[in-house]
Amino acid sequence: MSAFSNGDIFVGETLGTAALILLGGGVCAAVTLRKSKAQNAGWLAITFGWGFAVMVAAYMVAPKSGAHLNPAVTIALAVESGEWSKVPLYLGSQMLGAMIGAVLVWATYLGQFQANKEPTLGIFSTGPEIRNAYQNLLTEIIATMVLCMGILTQGLTKGLGLSGMGVLIVAFTVVGIGLSLGGPTGYAINPVRDLGPRIVHALLPIPNKGGSDWSYAWVPVVGPLIGGALSGLLYKGLF
Amino acid sequence: MSAFSNGDIFVGETLGTAALILLGGGVCAAVTLRKSKAQNAGWLAITFGWGFAVMVAAYMVAPKSGAHLNPAVTIALAVESGEWSKVPLYLGSQMLGAMIGAVLVWATYLGQFQANKEPTLGIFSTGPEIRNAYQNLLTEIIATMVLCMGILTQGLTKGLGLSGMGVLIVAFTVVGIGLSLGGPTGYAINPVRDLGPRIVHALLPIPNKGGSDWSYAWVPVVGPLIGGALSGLLYKGLF
Amino acid sequence: MSAFSNGDIFVGETLGTAALILLGGGVCAAVTLRKSKAQNAGWLAITFGWGFAVMVAAYMVAPKSGAHLNPAVTIALAVESGEWSKVPLYLGSQMLGAMIGAVLVWATYLGQFQANKEPTLGIFSTGPEIRNAYQNLLTEIIATMVLCMGILTQGLTKGLGLSGMGVLIVAFTVVGIGLSLGGPTGYAINPVRDLGPRIVHALLPIPNKGGSDWSYAWVPVVGPLIGGALSGLLYKGLF
Amino acid sequence: MSAFSNGDIFVGETLGTAALILLGGGVCAAVTLRKSKAQNAGWLAITFGWGFAVMVAAYMVAPKSGAHLNPAVTIALAVESGEWSKVPLYLGSQMLGAMIGAVLVWATYLGQFQANKEPTLGIFSTGPEIRNAYQNLLTEIIATMVLCMGILTQGLTKGLGLSGMGVLIVAFTVVGIGLSLGGPTGYAINPVRDLGPRIVHALLPIPNKGGSDWSYAWVPVVGPLIGGALSGLLYKGLF
Repeated sequence: MSAFSNGDIFVGETLGTAALILLGGGVCAAVTLRKSKAQNAGWLAITFGWGFAVMVAAYMVAPKSGAHLNPAVTIALAVESGEWSKVPLYLGSQMLGAMIGAVLVWATYLGQFQANKEPTLGIFSTGPEIRNAYQNLLTEIIATMVLCMGILTQGLTKGLGLSGMGVLIVAFTVVGIGLSLGGPTGYAINPVRDLGPRIVHALLPIPNKGGSDWSYAWVPVVGPLIGGALSGLLYKGLF
Repeated sequence: MSAFSNGDIFVGETLGTAALILLGGGVCAAVTLRKSKAQNAGWLAITFGWGFAVMVAAYMVAPKSGAHLNPAVTIALAVESGEWSKVPLYLGSQMLGAMIGAVLVWATYLGQFQANKEPTLGIFSTGPEIRNAYQNLLTEIIATMVLCMGILTQGLTKGLGLSGMGVLIVAFTVVGIGLSLGGPTGYAINPVRDLGPRIVHALLPIPNKGGSDWSYAWVPVVGPLIGGALSGLLYKGLF
Repeated sequence: MSAFSNGDIFVGETLGTAALILLGGGVCAAVTLRKSKAQNAGWLAITFGWGFAVMVAAYMVAPKSGAHLNPAVTIALAVESGEWSKVPLYLGSQMLGAMIGAVLVWATYLGQFQANKEPTLGIFSTGPEIRNAYQNLLTEIIATMVLCMGILTQGLTKGLGLSGMGVLIVAFTVVGIGLSLGGPTGYAINPVRDLGPRIVHALLPIPNKGGSDWSYAWVPVVGPLIGGALSGLLYKGLF
Repeated sequence: MSAFSNGDIFVGETLGTAALILLGGGVCAAVTLRKSKAQNAGWLAITFGWGFAVMVAAYMVAPKSGAHLNPAVTIALAVESGEWSKVPLYLGSQMLGAMIGAVLVWATYLGQFQANKEPTLGIFSTGPEIRNAYQNLLTEIIATMVLCMGILTQGLTKGLGLSGMGVLIVAFTVVGIGLSLGGPTGYAINPVRDLGPRIVHALLPIPNKGGSDWSYAWVPVVGPLIGGALSGLLYKGLF
């Protein structure tokens, strides 16, 4: 982590997380909104959309900041390496990028949002199918651990790092997590992916946008952070 | 750019863009036309079809011309590098290739087109779901910037260039743009991909083909050109 | 071509083409037959199924025979290189492998075939949506040229040859051809892929199996052969 | 096989097989259970879900144990190499991992399982569409041979081993087997993938879970073992 300058970390994580949320939130907008060519394109479209969002974003900024793009990944690497000094900069940049990305989704689908007649939180943030905070937390912890264990074992044991192949495998890992573990909570697996767009949803002037479900907002923040920390510990124990 | 001879650029960009439009327009024909085995195959089929169209075309001609296949990419690289002398040759070859590709779509689906009873512009060119020129322009600018930033950061910062891995990642980037940002306008993100086939649509003897919607034609030309230029500037500023 | 021994060519092309048709015919059986978990899985499933069939087969036997698996590819390489002495061995082995593969599809889906009540030629061989021999021939020529130009430019200009990346790109090329150009005729693009299973369909004891449509059988043989030969000539002219 | 220590084999195969079943069983839960965002996502989602499950699991533990994750693969490699001493350790670890993975699926979808009203064996284990033990056995043997022949030819003849590319190709091979050969029996192609979760299904306190179909349980164990052994013999004979 310490190999990158503060300026590069700020630019890389902000730009990368903005691209991640633009494409990830974008696919949710695409399949949800009326007057979108992709309306009802289905769960496979959503999961591949988020996977390729990770691919584009990570590939774009990997040489600047290592492309964490996710506080859970930053925490997992910090627990594993013991280096914590850059963590606040990573998390702050990711949060800023996530909010910029959510605004760009709104700009891309401006006409659709102006004509909106239904609650739109689902385009910005996740929500559970069956609301039970501790079950939802457990789901998020497990799903995040698959992601972080994949990244730790890829990055540190195989030498592929953030090459094209490494990025592609991380992207398909995210598709796989979505397909397999996304059913109960919509797989936030990333605190800023959920909280940043939720704040933007609360602020944007979208007609009939509905509430921002703040009572659930802590689950997709705390669950992924726990999952990231546990991954760092598990990796240190096993590898 | 200047590493390629004029003859190679002409052959590469013409052949490559023809292959791009043959396969890209082809998937639109496949899912749209009656008496096609792929009719109603859905948005995921369209987006993967266009992504693999990019992959086939780029891989085929990368060593001849660098496989721009898109004036937005050519402009982005020219803005970034400051080299403009080959730009007219690239753009002219791309336009010729796009028109050849559109004629090949028609030849491949000749029986289906001869039996056509509905407007067919959507097979050749893009159109908006909600018609608002400046909103549509903004959507095309954002989507094109994702493509061009991806290409600039891949080509110049990672050394993968136009290897198999680089081509595959560009292809999946195009799938991702389609899934996430294609909802409002159908993601032209390439001036000749839209204008070339639109001219061919106007000229071909297809029964009941409907109009060519010339009033919209400037948006998918101007938007991607702006997006390409802005990407070149942004890349120079950040990287 | 001449780098492989006759014995290796025979084993490689027979085994590889058998695997190709087992998986390719298999996906057609999977989505068509009653009492199959994949029934009606859709065009995207068919096209990815055929693409991964090519990947598995080519990767398995590439070091033995070069993994042509297709007379159109063999002809394209022969026209390009001028070496014709091994062509009969390649074609004979491919035809034998295709017939073995079709029998394996029948064995895999034995219970489903024994309970069959509908024409099943579509599981074994291709057929046109609109029957017009010269239009169908043109479609097959164009689609085969995309495949063969892709293989020629990959194999000879990029040095990837039959590595994992090269095989993956050929596989996705076949997915792309299916998505984009498969609508009118079902993209045989390979003479033995169509003729071998058609003969097996005629011979197998499947109840209610219907006719083998011999009047169309020449189109998916002749079209791909022409496409392969034209690709060899075009490649020699342009590259 | 003998290059790995006993401790590493135990950790690698247990962790890897747990990840495989968590993601593979997870996608079956995701598309089957009520109140899952992925319900009815279709056969393509299931097959890509299992393929990426293999990718994640294999990539995670390849350097620890070689990532067999499947007794059929272990048997195929033992027949091919003649080394049998580590086989019991591999098989025991795989069985333990498969059971852990099945429990993790239950934990991830805990709310959905608590509200369950239908038989759920299909989330844990495979079952035939047409019940005929010898036909089902034949289907499993053929499908497993495609997997094991792919792995033997990749690992030993191409030098890609368990690199990113090798893992990706194995993953897409599994997608292809599912699409093409999964229709009759649901492609167990792995004894512990079926038997481990079947035992867990029998033990877990899921309301209305239905029976565990023990009369069929031997087929997806014996079939893949025969397929693995035949692959080892075939590979030795041909390569």
